[in-house]
Amino acid sequence: MYNFVFQNTTKIYFGENQLEHLGEELKQYGTRVLLTYGGGSIKKIGLYDKVMDELKKTGLTVFELSGIEPNPRHTTVNKGADICKKENIDVLLAVGGGSTIDCTKAISAAAFYDGDSWDLVTHKAPVTKALPIVTILTLSATGSEMDSAAVISNLDTNEKYGLIHPLLQPKVSFLDPANTYSVSAFQTACGAADILSHIFDCFYFTASKKMDMVDRVMEDVIKTVVKYAPIAVKEPENYEARANLMWASSWALNGFLTTGGFQAPSCHAMEHELSAFYDITHGLGLAILTPRWMEYILDESSAPQFKKFGVNIFGVDESLSDMEGAERAIECLSDFLFKTLGLQSTLTEIGIDDKKFKVMAKKACRGDVLQGFKALTPEDVENIFRMCL
Amino acid sequence: MYNFVFQNTTKIYFGENQLEHLGEELKQYGTRVLLTYGGGSIKKIGLYDKVMDELKKTGLTVFELSGIEPNPRHTTVNKGADICKKENIDVLLAVGGGSTIDCTKAISAAAFYDGDSWDLVTHKAPVTKALPIVTILTLSATGSEMDSAAVISNLDTNEKYGLIHPLLQPKVSFLDPANTYSVSAFQTACGAADILSHIFDCFYFTASKKMDMVDRVMEDVIKTVVKYAPIAVKEPENYEARANLMWASSWALNGFLTTGGFQAPSCHAMEHELSAFYDITHGLGLAILTPRWMEYILDESSAPQFKKFGVNIFGVDESLSDMEGAERAIECLSDFLFKTLGLQSTLTEIGIDDKKFKVMAKKACRGDVLQGFKALTPEDVENIFRMCL
Repeated sequence: MYNFVFQNTTKIYFGENQLEHLGEELKQYGTRVLLTYGGGSIKKIGLYDKVMDELKKTGLTVFELSGIEPNPRHTTVNKGADICKKENIDVLLAVGGGSTIDCTKAISAAAFYDGDSWDLVTHKAPVTKALPIVTILTLSATGSEMDSAAVISNLDTNEKYGLIHPLLQPKVSFLDPANTYSVSAFQTACGAADILSHIFDCFYFTASKKMDMVDRVMEDVIKTVVKYAPIAVKEPENYEARANLMWASSWALNGFLTTGGFQAPSCHAMEHELSAFYDITHGLGLAILTPRWMEYILDESSAPQFKKFGVNIFGVDESLSDMEGAERAIECLSDFLFKTLGLQSTLTEIGIDDKKFKVMAKKACRGDVLQGFKALTPEDVENIFRMCL
Repeated sequence: MYNFVFQNTTKIYFGENQLEHLGEELKQYGTRVLLTYGGGSIKKIGLYDKVMDELKKTGLTVFELSGIEPNPRHTTVNKGADICKKENIDVLLAVGGGSTIDCTKAISAAAFYDGDSWDLVTHKAPVTKALPIVTILTLSATGSEMDSAAVISNLDTNEKYGLIHPLLQPKVSFLDPANTYSVSAFQTACGAADILSHIFDCFYFTASKKMDMVDRVMEDVIKTVVKYAPIAVKEPENYEARANLMWASSWALNGFLTTGGFQAPSCHAMEHELSAFYDITHGLGLAILTPRWMEYILDESSAPQFKKFGVNIFGVDESLSDMEGAERAIECLSDFLFKTLGLQSTLTEIGIDDKKFKVMAKKACRGDVLQGFKALTPEDVENIFRMCL
């Protein structure tokens, strides 16, 4: 019980006007920088110019890889790795949300591999070395800014897998809540759903015993999201809300909340199939799946935990029976995600039908069963997908 | 608001049977190890033998420095530094509580300095380099296992100061709750008071604005201590209680709880004078001082925070006025420290009279004022000391 190894080496600069430290941090690793970003929103908000100013001031040589997709592709990773090899890149600077950072992490390892980067993601080849990574976060959601995981998609095979390696841990991350002011209400809500799901999956809802202190902290990060996500949705430039969500996103997945427990991210595994096949926003898929997953696995053994969640987070009446309390908790979570945050509540609404449920369910289970609070067979997963229609 | 830099690189092995990793971790830094420890309790509990077995298995050459004092002396630091220089030590292994670890941290820096180690503590000479440190914790209290601070005493001058430098951060710490089973009820209680004080001082009680999430997490760690310290006092071999206290001790001072705020440890500064002059147990001094400090600074501006503390931690009636609620909170804390944990409640009981209050108060303020929730003049500090008689 409670055995674990914990380490998180990322240096965080949190708050406004911290970019003046960008140059000095990058310079430690060399002079040739590959700047990576997505569709260009960082230009709209003026962040691109600010970053370039700092890089120029420090006298760094900058190369660029733009156009990193949400659900980043292995083909983009290959493109980035080619630039690193050709231009002798010393350090990577990812400016964006989880997709940009994840793609950059994979590039950092692929830069030292001579084949297709998909080999690294599928563990056909090991990660042996990686370029150092610095990040500037623009979306509070994935926690990628302070962990060692990257999720990469292969659209040829409809696969989306996580690559986890200590070498992928960012050296430094800049977290300025003001850089998330322009995030849309929809993406803010999806980000909140993602943060919550990290805590649910790893492992607020669990069959194993947790350390009491860690369990309490999990609930406080959940409460933080439940309090501030609706504020950020309504008042995008509320610094306090953006700051709390940003630090919550990092802490939901930086390793502390998983100390002493067993990680088995059922909802994440199921959602990866949805976004691998339909390229939807990860947080939205998680929001739609989570209440149905809870409903599906609700029984006498899971009810006490779901009820406790309802009581502690949403003020569900403690005098209810476990089963009634759990049902009420699931309703409260659904209301929060679909009413308060305004996310779509069904797969049908986002254009997904049941055609691929069987193949997705099988893949989610990787031919076996999907471990988690309750082990799920492919048939179970298919049933859960069906509940989301 | 909320600007901060956060980094904590220490690798934690938590739980039982993790010592099998000790050799591999030390070996990364070299082959010549200086093992440091205190009065020999580690021999009584069999930990010394276990450690030596692992070191021998790995083929490391071991030197020893034993007899490190509670409130470790600069003279002991000098002794350790001499061994490091003479024996070309590669890495330090501290086995003990905060005193042993703090002393070892100071040794790690003094090993590269040719004068008296007190020069480093008093900033007459800068820390330029330090030997790597691995720790095995045997007392949940100071958080030294996961921070970069060392508190060293000079009995010639009755001074006790903190030396803080990133190079002093332990590389690896082994936290096995079972290694604290033999800690006495008194020392367990003192450790709990120390953990609480870290949170109060840095900076649960503050005049500045805190990030909501961090404030909640502070209360979680406080609740953890309030729940488990009395259990550990009564049932010294309760693993769950020891585990929660151990992880709480690390997190109370590992930097996370100070993110976004201002550190000004009033009670710690006042206590350092008590233990510098009277060599008392640090946690006991903190326990005696804290409720008096709260009482002394209680006014309309501090009352809301003290009341909130009482309501959230001890279930004080929320409908009370701020002032009544705050008074009740101070009573609850006193009851917890002096009745539930059984600590002595006055300086008189531990043989301290008012003879040196004036000089200690002046030193605590370093000739100026002591910053904190409320700034304190030497006269204020003297008054607080007097309330502790």
